[in-house]
Amino acid sequence: MNERAGGFHQRLERAWERNDSLLCVGLDPDPRRLPTGLDGATDAVFRFCVEIVEATADLVCAFKPQIAHFAALRAENQLERLCEHIAEHHPDIPIILDAKRGDIGSTAEQYAKEAFNRYGADAVTVNPYLGTDSIEPFLASGAVIALCRTSNPGSADLQMLDVDGEPLYLRVARMIAERWSTLGEVGLVVGATHPDELGRVREVVGDLPILVPGVGAQGGDAGEAVAAGARTDGRGLIVNSSRAVLYASSGPDFAEAARETAIATRDACRLSRAG
Amino acid sequence: MNERAGGFHQRLERAWERNDSLLCVGLDPDPRRLPTGLDGATDAVFRFCVEIVEATADLVCAFKPQIAHFAALRAENQLERLCEHIAEHHPDIPIILDAKRGDIGSTAEQYAKEAFNRYGADAVTVNPYLGTDSIEPFLASGAVIALCRTSNPGSADLQMLDVDGEPLYLRVARMIAERWSTLGEVGLVVGATHPDELGRVREVVGDLPILVPGVGAQGGDAGEAVAAGARTDGRGLIVNSSRAVLYASSGPDFAEAARETAIATRDACRLSRAG
Repeated sequence: MNERAGGFHQRLERAWERNDSLLCVGLDPDPRRLPTGLDGATDAVFRFCVEIVEATADLVCAFKPQIAHFAALRAENQLERLCEHIAEHHPDIPIILDAKRGDIGSTAEQYAKEAFNRYGADAVTVNPYLGTDSIEPFLASGAVIALCRTSNPGSADLQMLDVDGEPLYLRVARMIAERWSTLGEVGLVVGATHPDELGRVREVVGDLPILVPGVGAQGGDAGEAVAAGARTDGRGLIVNSSRAVLYASSGPDFAEAARETAIATRDACRLSRAG
Repeated sequence: MNERAGGFHQRLERAWERNDSLLCVGLDPDPRRLPTGLDGATDAVFRFCVEIVEATADLVCAFKPQIAHFAALRAENQLERLCEHIAEHHPDIPIILDAKRGDIGSTAEQYAKEAFNRYGADAVTVNPYLGTDSIEPFLASGAVIALCRTSNPGSADLQMLDVDGEPLYLRVARMIAERWSTLGEVGLVVGATHPDELGRVREVVGDLPILVPGVGAQGGDAGEAVAAGARTDGRGLIVNSSRAVLYASSGPDFAEAARETAIATRDACRLSRAG
């Protein structure tokens, strides 16, 4: 269980305020794209991510490690060390474990242990398809951020199906806001590639945090996303950028280049809020 | 990549035929429930599962390790060894990695690597909520079994929503049968707790394999499931039992007790087919 101060929502509000930033840096290390000089080390993925964390920690409201990129490399131990590093050196920055878990009963309990006990995450991303009882074991020990409208083209296959006059993703948003939020700390995922729909979700979910992937490499515009989805206080969004920050440069200046891209994305969010 | 002979469907057909069984044993090791004598070993989970595998390999059409139970214990290496053991000693029995993965683009590729390269699975369970393009990276290197109508009570929250006059789960079944099955080897998950709906899914998906969890500890009846969902040749189902087999006894006779429960469940499926 996470022993740092406060629940996920409280920690996120403080990070938004302290760093005056909606930016989340996604930690999706690709061994084929590591910068020169790091690519030979046995713990290269850990070392690369730590450099990115150190270069951006004052610019973000959260870090979001993506577990598949570690699992494919048999590098769960490096993910553990990375989460420990963030918790120790940047205790005020929430960790969102991007795992998109979804299962039932005793198996959901095991996934919750994985996210909250093993990795010390503040929140874990989950898939809503299995329904409310699949989420409860997670909410017993941490926060969930549930997929609502994802950033990929195929997301329309299910998420845009018409359910009683509204698209499924909006029904999911309503279920999360009206029911799941009474059971624990929740948020939602809405891709930056759908700014209009982000606005519709915001109308439905009140002040709940919305994680917004899809800016940068996936083509979504950070400014448009913030204009459409921020709360009236200018916060409420966790705007994620992964590859555009991580691989801003493949040379020895990769950390500085990552910082520059992170600053530009953070500022794009700020400018939009002001306007 | 799996190098054993044939694709998932072919290997499954052969296992149905050779063992004359629709039973799948789910490998969900719970460290609190390991039998006396095994519970102290550092690789207790691996050793327990191997004993179950050896006691039931001639009775099953597939083994289904559930990854969360290993991940929560930091025991991915024991899951690797377990899959290697099955592949080496029972090369004709397909391995279904129960992971319920679902993500997009490069991340889905990493999950596919995890399932098919790292663990050598023949098939992996996936969640359909993200749509067709989230499944394609998996189908490029193995088979998927997609959630359709799950066995838990809360599954109705989304899966029973009305979409143009039919429940969402049936729309998902149609999408899998009409579209995903043209892209690679697919199957579906329908819980034994919904035998009527299993029958409706069978009408929609033709001969595709259906994984049926929920018998035993969850209360579903194996015979009813087979009567409702088997193909006209009496095959087509993968009827999973996990806890009822694994924990049939907590004493030193646990492997024999597991075998007895497995035989009874296999026979319940056979009797139903005959009737």
